[in-house]
Amino acid sequence: MTHAREMLASSPAPIPGVDTALLADAALAAFDCAQTCTACANACLGEPQLQDLVRCIRLNLHCADLCDTTGRLISRQENPDLARAILQACALACRLCAEECERHTDMEHCRICAAACRRCQEACEQLLASLPT
Amino acid sequence: MTHAREMLASSPAPIPGVDTALLADAALAAFDCAQTCTACANACLGEPQLQDLVRCIRLNLHCADLCDTTGRLISRQENPDLARAILQACALACRLCAEECERHTDMEHCRICAAACRRCQEACEQLLASLPT
Amino acid sequence: MTHAREMLASSPAPIPGVDTALLADAALAAFDCAQTCTACANACLGEPQLQDLVRCIRLNLHCADLCDTTGRLISRQENPDLARAILQACALACRLCAEECERHTDMEHCRICAAACRRCQEACEQLLASLPT
Amino acid sequence: MTHAREMLASSPAPIPGVDTALLADAALAAFDCAQTCTACANACLGEPQLQDLVRCIRLNLHCADLCDTTGRLISRQENPDLARAILQACALACRLCAEECERHTDMEHCRICAAACRRCQEACEQLLASLPT
Repeated sequence: MTHAREMLASSPAPIPGVDTALLADAALAAFDCAQTCTACANACLGEPQLQDLVRCIRLNLHCADLCDTTGRLISRQENPDLARAILQACALACRLCAEECERHTDMEHCRICAAACRRCQEACEQLLASLPT
Repeated sequence: MTHAREMLASSPAPIPGVDTALLADAALAAFDCAQTCTACANACLGEPQLQDLVRCIRLNLHCADLCDTTGRLISRQENPDLARAILQACALACRLCAEECERHTDMEHCRICAAACRRCQEACEQLLASLPT
Repeated sequence: MTHAREMLASSPAPIPGVDTALLADAALAAFDCAQTCTACANACLGEPQLQDLVRCIRLNLHCADLCDTTGRLISRQENPDLARAILQACALACRLCAEECERHTDMEHCRICAAACRRCQEACEQLLASLPT
Repeated sequence: MTHAREMLASSPAPIPGVDTALLADAALAAFDCAQTCTACANACLGEPQLQDLVRCIRLNLHCADLCDTTGRLISRQENPDLARAILQACALACRLCAEECERHTDMEHCRICAAACRRCQEACEQLLASLPT
């Protein structure tokens, strides 16, 4: 269905010494999280209790921007220090956004968004742990 | 694996009168194509015949940027005229990039990228055809 | 202060047959509008009458995304048809966002944002009018 | 000419306790650097010695993506830890890209791009130094 795994397998390794499957997994999780956070911000804007969701919307927007850029950077040949810096920022944005969305899982969109953020946070942390030091 | 379909189903319809499954399909195809084009540009930069791939790289970068923005816009409640304009631009970028990548399918990354671009072009065209006039 | 004009003057013409000063002007206006719309969405989220600003926030986010991508595309060598499609979409997003912000110019951030959107709309339309047919 | 300073002055402080002028300065420098790096990658793709510019193009693309996201994040109300993480990543990308461009300042576009990157690196570092701990 998606082409990320096949694509990264066919390419010269974007980060030398790094497992391509972990990389493809993180790229997929990052773009999925970018889409989910964008849609969650939009859904929050349609809720009657909007005033209570301002922090959630801001974190959704931050997380969408960071996931997007992270998905791009790790799809491109890379300075390992730069990969580390963006993966750390992305994992933090995902954790903050997940924690906020988990506070109101009575809303289906926040429940799904929290899952996508946790999934991306884990993928970033696994890729981080595998980076050559 | 990805959350786009579930997310858009749980949200107020981003474009009133539009089928949510078509929308989720286009959003998924757009983010997949953004990732694939970013990785194809990177892979082209590593090829010995780089001088012959300049147009391919530029179209990869255009297509990645447009797919990304299209994936975001159609995940957000929307003016139908604006949806139409961005979907038309995105389908054009995908077609141009696919045509270029199809000229050198001896390279695995261009073969995969052409498939992702054609997939996204079709998803944009299907969504366009379904928009209320 | 900014480098866009100097940069585009030093580069091979991104769109053959197009005036570099018009191009630099549109690129500058697009990135300025992306920043302003991002900040306006954030400021709207802090307003007490937030419920009345939902459409404004969504248009701010659309406009920021489109301006960003437009600024990138016109800074890169380009198929003129693709340049035309994205400039049309961008001018539309700027007009819609300006019209909405102009409805509540009692808020300083909306007044400034409307001006940035009108500025970018005009720069896109001028560049469009100068494109070779 | 640009609206960033006026806009951020009119908004609730995006990062509590942070000087708005430093913030506007960093946002402007980041969007300027995003545009300049995008144009530098495009100009490098048109050079006869393209094979020697692969690392430069990749760093241009990384730097453009990171500057863009940094410009967005610091224009939006913010967790200070997240601001710190993205500003560090951005300053690193700017430094790496500047160092590479400084190796071939015989090309006008690389000379200008190095200046934009150094400008943005400094603005990020000044904003970082002013963040509340």
